[in-house]
Amino acid sequence: MKTWTANVLTLFPEAYPGILGMSVLGKALERRLWKLNLIDIKNFSKKNHKVDDIPFGGGTGMVIKPDVLDGALSSIKNKKFPIYYLTPRGTKFSQKIAEKMSKHDGATFLCGRYEGVDQRFIDHYKLIEISIGDYILSGGDLPTMVVLDSIIRLLPEVISNKNALDEESFKNHLLEYPLYTQPRSWKNLDVPEVLLSGNHKKIKDWKIKQSEDITKLRRPDLWKKYLKSK
Amino acid sequence: MKTWTANVLTLFPEAYPGILGMSVLGKALERRLWKLNLIDIKNFSKKNHKVDDIPFGGGTGMVIKPDVLDGALSSIKNKKFPIYYLTPRGTKFSQKIAEKMSKHDGATFLCGRYEGVDQRFIDHYKLIEISIGDYILSGGDLPTMVVLDSIIRLLPEVISNKNALDEESFKNHLLEYPLYTQPRSWKNLDVPEVLLSGNHKKIKDWKIKQSEDITKLRRPDLWKKYLKSK
Repeated sequence: MKTWTANVLTLFPEAYPGILGMSVLGKALERRLWKLNLIDIKNFSKKNHKVDDIPFGGGTGMVIKPDVLDGALSSIKNKKFPIYYLTPRGTKFSQKIAEKMSKHDGATFLCGRYEGVDQRFIDHYKLIEISIGDYILSGGDLPTMVVLDSIIRLLPEVISNKNALDEESFKNHLLEYPLYTQPRSWKNLDVPEVLLSGNHKKIKDWKIKQSEDITKLRRPDLWKKYLKSK
Repeated sequence: MKTWTANVLTLFPEAYPGILGMSVLGKALERRLWKLNLIDIKNFSKKNHKVDDIPFGGGTGMVIKPDVLDGALSSIKNKKFPIYYLTPRGTKFSQKIAEKMSKHDGATFLCGRYEGVDQRFIDHYKLIEISIGDYILSGGDLPTMVVLDSIIRLLPEVISNKNALDEESFKNHLLEYPLYTQPRSWKNLDVPEVLLSGNHKKIKDWKIKQSEDITKLRRPDLWKKYLKSK
């Protein structure tokens, strides 16, 4: 059994594992299917110095200093992992990237804060810049947790039923079909009859049709990819 | 001063506020610029009953029951807020949506887990389905935190310097320019000279040029919108 390792450079190590320590991800952490190695950036500023400073050329907010980040990064023993920097300027994160990342032995994440980090640090270490979406957050910790969540649940043995991973959204470029459970009738709304029929072929066809309909309606971009792949 | 209210229906209330209770968002929580009202879905299942059950028509994973969710939702006093359900099948969340949501008095969030929630609950309460990106997570809590982060930092008084919000990515459809701070020279890499020039006009032009270049290179989709808006 391999342990997938996450090195996380952060200003808020006390926020971890947070929700990553609960439910299926938390159980996987206990079972050592993955490991969280937290590096507190604050420990790498010189005595009486701050981790950040004002930006050259003016502008609002503070920028994290490259020498401080360098100290933090150098403290990591496992240096062979790719280094990811979460930023709105990065490549869009996707299920495909999550799958790729889950096949490595681990990854190192830099969580920015304030205005951002010094560009020279990004350039020098050739950080891989990724973005979880077109919106602005107050720091890189939540996006790092999002990326970790999506990776960890794909690791072998984390989700016991392999079929669960095969039926979800973005597999085959389709969104997932609607789900129904007990009670059979709720507020006069009934579970679709086909799902109670016991006819596996019909049920399967219904699910595919539902997935196709919702993808066509809500995500013409995915729908095109689906038609191409068929 | 208004308090923006977040009602969160979750199976893991112990994960909150988590990182939302730290840094600038945490200070805003202390100053009552926003309020977190947690509803534990587990409290609304009938005695000796679970919150979830197997899906009709077969398939893997469990589905959260509509009657349990109904109890949880009905317990909220402030019923006038729109109800958001975080799901990969939803409308893509964006900075524009964050801005709109920050102008209301609050919002209610349903955090799914396991396979998802019963479709009838989504239909009956006309939940607004939103997605933070094209990847799968183990639950709706992290995406809810992401959405909350992006909203809260836009609330009046949360970020003291209004200019900070005007210069960031996605404003005017441009990605942010690179940032530099002390030291002036690091690993023989120097801060771009123009930023030390003191010439405000030149610095401003350089920043715009940098933003344009990186947007053009990395995000042709945003670049098109930018050209249109000019």
